[in-house]
Amino acid sequence: MKILVLGGDGFCGWPTALHLSAAGHNVAIVDNLSRRKIDWELGTSSLTPMAALPDRLSAWKSLTGRTIAFELIDIAQEYARLLALIEDYQPDTIIHFAEQRAAPYSMKSADTKRYTVNNNTNATHNILCSLVDSGVDAHLVHLGTMGVYGYGWSGSMTVPEGYIEVKFVGKEGELKREILHPANPGSVYHMTKTLDQLMFAFYAKNDGIRVTDLHQGIVWGTQTPETEIDELLINRFDYDGDYGTVLNRFLMQAAIGHPLTVYGSGGQTRAFIHIRDTVRCIELAILNPPAPGAKPTIFNQVTETYRLRDLAALVSGLTGAKIDHLENPRVEADENELVVDNSKFLALGLNATTLSQGLLTEVHDIAGKYVARVDRSTILPTSRWRQERAEAGEFPLAKPTAKTAS
Amino acid sequence: MKILVLGGDGFCGWPTALHLSAAGHNVAIVDNLSRRKIDWELGTSSLTPMAALPDRLSAWKSLTGRTIAFELIDIAQEYARLLALIEDYQPDTIIHFAEQRAAPYSMKSADTKRYTVNNNTNATHNILCSLVDSGVDAHLVHLGTMGVYGYGWSGSMTVPEGYIEVKFVGKEGELKREILHPANPGSVYHMTKTLDQLMFAFYAKNDGIRVTDLHQGIVWGTQTPETEIDELLINRFDYDGDYGTVLNRFLMQAAIGHPLTVYGSGGQTRAFIHIRDTVRCIELAILNPPAPGAKPTIFNQVTETYRLRDLAALVSGLTGAKIDHLENPRVEADENELVVDNSKFLALGLNATTLSQGLLTEVHDIAGKYVARVDRSTILPTSRWRQERAEAGEFPLAKPTAKTAS
Repeated sequence: MKILVLGGDGFCGWPTALHLSAAGHNVAIVDNLSRRKIDWELGTSSLTPMAALPDRLSAWKSLTGRTIAFELIDIAQEYARLLALIEDYQPDTIIHFAEQRAAPYSMKSADTKRYTVNNNTNATHNILCSLVDSGVDAHLVHLGTMGVYGYGWSGSMTVPEGYIEVKFVGKEGELKREILHPANPGSVYHMTKTLDQLMFAFYAKNDGIRVTDLHQGIVWGTQTPETEIDELLINRFDYDGDYGTVLNRFLMQAAIGHPLTVYGSGGQTRAFIHIRDTVRCIELAILNPPAPGAKPTIFNQVTETYRLRDLAALVSGLTGAKIDHLENPRVEADENELVVDNSKFLALGLNATTLSQGLLTEVHDIAGKYVARVDRSTILPTSRWRQERAEAGEFPLAKPTAKTAS
Repeated sequence: MKILVLGGDGFCGWPTALHLSAAGHNVAIVDNLSRRKIDWELGTSSLTPMAALPDRLSAWKSLTGRTIAFELIDIAQEYARLLALIEDYQPDTIIHFAEQRAAPYSMKSADTKRYTVNNNTNATHNILCSLVDSGVDAHLVHLGTMGVYGYGWSGSMTVPEGYIEVKFVGKEGELKREILHPANPGSVYHMTKTLDQLMFAFYAKNDGIRVTDLHQGIVWGTQTPETEIDELLINRFDYDGDYGTVLNRFLMQAAIGHPLTVYGSGGQTRAFIHIRDTVRCIELAILNPPAPGAKPTIFNQVTETYRLRDLAALVSGLTGAKIDHLENPRVEADENELVVDNSKFLALGLNATTLSQGLLTEVHDIAGKYVARVDRSTILPTSRWRQERAEAGEFPLAKPTAKTAS
C-alpha cells in the first residue's frame, strides 16, 4: 500500500511511519518540522536524544534496507505543493497527524490559539480539497481525540464510538436519528478536532471522500519495536507543562525527586493508550476503510481509563515519589466518570499493553536513563485556560507569554 | 450604544449600519472590501449603481448629519489591527457579517473553497480571540444561516431555534439533553457557519463571551428606509449565478425576457426574509443580549417559506415570464418540507414584510428601473457541487474556472 504520513516527524507520526514501513508498505513522510520549531520557541526539548529527520531516515535505511521518502511541505500553507505531491504519489492512504496537538499550548496566548485554529483547520481542509481536486481516491485516516466528546455527557453514559442514537419529537411523534456525538471540547486544540469532524462529514457526503477518524486518548509510553532498534530511531518524550502529557510529567517528577503534581483533587478520569497500541490501531484502521459514500468511520482509540490520582499512586508506588495537589489551570470538573466504548478495535484484534504492565519500562528505560538531560524549569504548567486566572496569579507561571503582532 | 459593523460594506452590513446609525447608535464600519474585489474576479457587478464606500459615508453625513467611521481592515488576516481597534473603540456590540457568503462561490474551485474556509474561520476566531485578549465585554452578534440545519431532519420536525431536546440511553435509563441541532450543511460556505457555531459555544463556555447567532433565511428585497433616501446610499443587488439568490435571478430573468430557471422540480422549500426585516431583527438582537456565561442565543431570522416553483409562479404572475426547469447543480433533494420556528423574533415584535406585499416594488423599482445595466452572461449557474458533474457537462458552464497556485 502507498501511504503518506502527514506529520510523520512527530510523536505519533514517526513510530507510525516506521511501523508501516516495517510491515512492507511504501511510506513517505510529509512534515513542516513545526514541532521542533515549537521546542525552540518554548525553550523545551525531548528528554530522549532525538535525531534530525534525515538522520533518522538514513538510519532506518541502513538498519532495515527500507526507504522512507520525506517531503518538507507546510500542508496548511502550501496547497499547490500538497496537490502536486498527491497527484504524483497517488497514495492509497493518507494518515493525517499534521496538527498542533497540545491543549495547554493552544491556550497559552492569542497567538497560539490563532496558530492552532489556522494551522489545524487549513491543514485538514487542504487535504480534503486536494483529494477532490486531484480525483485521487485515497482513504484519509485522521488522528482525532477523545476530547471532542468532553465530559458533560460521559458521566451518564458509555462514550460511544463517534455516533449516538437519539430520540426527538417530530411532527408526528417521536423519531430516532443517529447523530455525531455532540461536541464539548475543553480547549482550543480540542475545538479544532470538533471542526475537523464537521469538515469530514461534509466532504464524505458531498464528494464521497472516505475518512476514518480516530478519537485517541492520552498516549503514554515512548518506544515501539521499531524505534527501539537503534538510538538514532528513538521517539520523542515530552515532559514540559505544555506538550508533556500527565504521565510523562509524573515520570520526570519522580526521576528528579520532585513531588508528582496532581491538578485539583485528581479525580479527573482520562483514557489512555500506549504508543505501540497507537501504531497497531492505525494499521488496523488502514486495513479496514469505510465504503465509498459512507459517513466517516469513527473509532475510540483507547485501551484503559484511570483517575489521575490513581495514576499518580501507580507512579508513586513504583518510584517512591510524593504527591502534591496544585490549583487546576484548566476549566473543568474536578471529578468525572469515564467509560469508553472501544469495542471496534478489540473486535479487529487489538491486544493492549496496560499501564500496570508497561510503566516500569518507562521508569527505568526512559525517565531513569535520560534523567541527566532534564530541564527542571519546564515541568510546571505555564498555560492557563482563562485570562483572569493568570492575572490573579492563582497558580505558578514559569514565564510570561509575550503578546506579539499578527 | 457603540457598535462595530464588521463587513459593513456588504449587502446586509450596509443597510444595518445605516439603520443603527439612524436609530442614534454610534456606528463604525470595518471592511476589507472583499465583496467588491470578488465582483472584479467574477466579472460581475451590482445591478444597482453602488457608490464607493467613502462616497456612501459622505452622502450619509450630508443627508442626515450623522457620522459613520470606516476602518479598512482584513479581520481574518490583520489581527493586531483588529485588536487595537477593539481596545481603542471599546464597542458595546460587534456585528459580524465579515464572511464570504455565497454557497455557489464557495463550491466553484479548490481556491474558492479554501478562501471561504480560511477567511470565515479565521475572521470569526480572530474576533473571539480579540475579545478575550482585550478584556472588552462586547456582545457579539453573528449572521449565521438556516443552512446549518440542512434539510435532513427538517421534513420531520419544525426547525427549532438552534437547540433541540433529545433523549438518549444512559447508564441508568433514558436521559434528556438540550443540544445544538446537528449540523448538516449543504456547501462549504454553509459548513463554515457550522464551524462558527462550535467556536461560539467554546468561547461562551470557557471565556464567558456573549454571542447571538442569527440563522437567516434567503434575503430578498434591496432597499430599506435608509438606503432609499438617496441613490448614493442604494444597496447592492446581485443577480449572477454565484451571488444572486434565487429571487433576484428570477427578477432579472423576467426583466430581460429570459425564462425563469428553476433547478430540478423546484420542490425545494426555502426560508425567506426581506432586507428591511433583517436590519430590524439585528436591532432586536442587539437590544436583547444573552446573560454573561450563558450559551449562545440563537434566533431563526426568517419570516416565510416558499417552494421555489411557487416563487417562480409568483414572479411569473407579476411579469408574464415563462418558467424553465434546469438540471440542479447542487447535491440536494428535489423536494423538501420546511417549517421554521421563528417565534423568538415574533415575540420581540417583528412585523414582517411578505413576498406577496413587497415583490411588485422589486419588479418595478429595481429590476425594471436598472435593467439597462444587466450583464446577461452572468445569470446562469457556473459553480457545481461535484467535480464529475462539471466534467460530464451536465449543465451549462458559462466559463471555466482556472486552477491557480496557492
